[in-house]
Amino acid sequence: MDNLYAKYIAPKGWKPLNPDEDYIITYLKIELSEEAQGKFEEAVAGCCAESSTGTWTQVYDGEGSGVPMADKMRAIAFDLEPEENRFKVAYRVDLFEIDNMSGLLAGIVGNIGGMKMLKALRCLDIRFPRKMVLAFPGPRFGIEGIREQMQLERGPLLLTVPKPKVGRTADEQADLARILFTAADGNYHGIKDDENLTNLFFNKFDERCKKVLAVQKEVEERTGKKKFYLSNVTHSRMDVMLQRANLIKENGGRWMMMDVATTGFAAVHTMRLINPGLAIHAHRAMHSFLTREEGDGADGDGQILDFSMSMVAFAKIMRLLGVDSFHGGAPKTKMENGNAHASIIIRDVLELDETPAVTGTLGQKWYGLKPVWHVASGGLHPGSVPDVLKNLGENIMLQCGGGCLGHPDGIEAGVEAIVKATELTLDGIDVEKWVVDNPNTPLGRAAQFWGFGPKIV
Amino acid sequence: MDNLYAKYIAPKGWKPLNPDEDYIITYLKIELSEEAQGKFEEAVAGCCAESSTGTWTQVYDGEGSGVPMADKMRAIAFDLEPEENRFKVAYRVDLFEIDNMSGLLAGIVGNIGGMKMLKALRCLDIRFPRKMVLAFPGPRFGIEGIREQMQLERGPLLLTVPKPKVGRTADEQADLARILFTAADGNYHGIKDDENLTNLFFNKFDERCKKVLAVQKEVEERTGKKKFYLSNVTHSRMDVMLQRANLIKENGGRWMMMDVATTGFAAVHTMRLINPGLAIHAHRAMHSFLTREEGDGADGDGQILDFSMSMVAFAKIMRLLGVDSFHGGAPKTKMENGNAHASIIIRDVLELDETPAVTGTLGQKWYGLKPVWHVASGGLHPGSVPDVLKNLGENIMLQCGGGCLGHPDGIEAGVEAIVKATELTLDGIDVEKWVVDNPNTPLGRAAQFWGFGPKIV
Repeated sequence: MDNLYAKYIAPKGWKPLNPDEDYIITYLKIELSEEAQGKFEEAVAGCCAESSTGTWTQVYDGEGSGVPMADKMRAIAFDLEPEENRFKVAYRVDLFEIDNMSGLLAGIVGNIGGMKMLKALRCLDIRFPRKMVLAFPGPRFGIEGIREQMQLERGPLLLTVPKPKVGRTADEQADLARILFTAADGNYHGIKDDENLTNLFFNKFDERCKKVLAVQKEVEERTGKKKFYLSNVTHSRMDVMLQRANLIKENGGRWMMMDVATTGFAAVHTMRLINPGLAIHAHRAMHSFLTREEGDGADGDGQILDFSMSMVAFAKIMRLLGVDSFHGGAPKTKMENGNAHASIIIRDVLELDETPAVTGTLGQKWYGLKPVWHVASGGLHPGSVPDVLKNLGENIMLQCGGGCLGHPDGIEAGVEAIVKATELTLDGIDVEKWVVDNPNTPLGRAAQFWGFGPKIV
Repeated sequence: MDNLYAKYIAPKGWKPLNPDEDYIITYLKIELSEEAQGKFEEAVAGCCAESSTGTWTQVYDGEGSGVPMADKMRAIAFDLEPEENRFKVAYRVDLFEIDNMSGLLAGIVGNIGGMKMLKALRCLDIRFPRKMVLAFPGPRFGIEGIREQMQLERGPLLLTVPKPKVGRTADEQADLARILFTAADGNYHGIKDDENLTNLFFNKFDERCKKVLAVQKEVEERTGKKKFYLSNVTHSRMDVMLQRANLIKENGGRWMMMDVATTGFAAVHTMRLINPGLAIHAHRAMHSFLTREEGDGADGDGQILDFSMSMVAFAKIMRLLGVDSFHGGAPKTKMENGNAHASIIIRDVLELDETPAVTGTLGQKWYGLKPVWHVASGGLHPGSVPDVLKNLGENIMLQCGGGCLGHPDGIEAGVEAIVKATELTLDGIDVEKWVVDNPNTPLGRAAQFWGFGPKIV
């Protein structure tokens, strides 16, 4: 390794001074390509150079780069773990614009994923320093704000997404909302658009928004119980998204839903700042292209297979940009990323004011930035409720679609089964035992129909 | 395979009627997870259901889903290639909002990448129907518009990104622009910010923008030759990006650069519509998390390893959303995706009015939507010029950073070497032979220093 690269790697034992004040830290895992076998340190140095101030050839033949500020600002790799192919990189926070997530990512994970020396790279985590955390808005409401809004002191928020995903008219969706909002003595809370439901010829956004929110208002006034509607404003035009958010506000709505991976980080940050006082529900469709990784742990050989960032890093970014709820994966869902351990790590990223640094992560201090509701969704049914609550706690949005609407005795029975499973679990009663004694209740029937394990497509 | 799934797969030989009028087609390749071995057709059906109207459980026990419109709008898989693990999916265009890229992607490649039946999924291509192509803006200028602006009838646009990536002050960058714009008799064209250069304490955006554009104006007035500056407006706040775009316009600039993967699809679409008449240069930092794939072809076993979309699909989206130049990979660069075959496919996506359907792709009719400049960048130097031009043609932005500034005899010599290599190639003269006869010219010296092959970090 020549002099050009040695300068990017810190001496053994080196740590950045005051990292939470002065440094952004990334934690990377790589696999070397055929041509780079045995060149772990060169690859590490290459990642530092390409993501900070370097390039592939010397551009000045004196000492350093010929640009003193570039030499001062270069990234430093430390805590190298060659046997695990992992390492950390420290960047001076002044190398970046502190409130610019898109600019930051273009630097720290921008070009390194394209290097020919690498056949795989995973950004395991990013630790943000105090001034950067405080430069982002964070959630507008967070967990407590939404509890106040919903007048719900404890327990999860229960909601349903209509299935089939699309096909109902606006009137049919409003009718469904009325059933969900009034079944089980009004102890069910919400309805959500699915990601395919935007503005369709048989179900226009404006009409749906007005009609579902009219039902929400009517039920709230009649019963005194608060309800919510996660209304999908997703669009690739910001002006259209804002227009839809304004319509929600005008009609008494309190939430907007947006697909954060397909709109992008700038859309999330901007909508957080300009939307008219709504809470933001972050739907994560297409996140798998960014985050899903079947290597390292999935098959136990410690290898990674692709170019990605972890859900931990993605969830941190979402909390900084300021969504109020986010689906980070939950136990027993139809989607991957559904093991309890991973879900708990994500919950701790979203919910704690100091996220601990468990293996493969860096932890994070949040300096009072509000926490985010963790969403459990995807193939859940009444039988999944105890496990989800046990693993993830009460501060969760628990979303059943087919697992509510597909109840063999109809939708009201589905709602009643979910509410009952929730109440029993919160009261510390074993649901699996309870259904044996109560087989002909909605929950008992659900347990017979779906069982308590996951049912996977 | 039960009735719930069989309905998603078309009979053998079925093709959608009038696909370019009525259907969006995706082309997918999958790998089955352990638990799904031997269940290719179930996985195909699952992809159709999850991306259109289905869910994981029956929600109605009569015929169909109980929602007739949902049954009518469901996706249909066809052209199944079980031995290759590939298939196509046809979606009725009415299932989506035609000008909403974020909504579309949330549907067609939204949740399917999360399915537990899959351990890998790659969206090889998306074919957009006419009404969708025409619903997007496409490039404002395109190839001809930029040629007119630059008064450049033929040949590539030549430009340099300052290296080190960051470290220079605004004044130093303006000085560098003057050298680039005036060396080689003024036959070099442009300067570009690097992705790490946003708004930094030692090089503020506003100051840099004004100073570099002042040099552009001065040189253009003095020499009558047009120059360009790709000024990096990337920010996760749309208001800041727009403010910067406006400053460029006020100071006589004609281009903005944005990082399209880290800002996101909504940022690109929106900036295309609201920016003050600038051309958009799409930088692709972090694209690897979405697009890079080391399986299928890379090692020849036909397997894919991760969850991703191809650069072909990504480049199509960029043309629709309306960038004027885009880096889709070029031969002989320091980054992957650098083989000539792949680069030519991308060039044909960006440049032709009818992109042919070569193996593994779907082709695309563009209905007059303007073409996009293909950018070759990343480790290029004068020795790379002939190969890049031979493979990709003249409608290319040819970007050398270290390969210009790192010339052993200085920056002017670097510029002269690149311009000379370009002129010789356009005149049909063999550069490798020419340098043997002219060893003491800037190009001859560059050939001795860098050679003609790639030089890789």
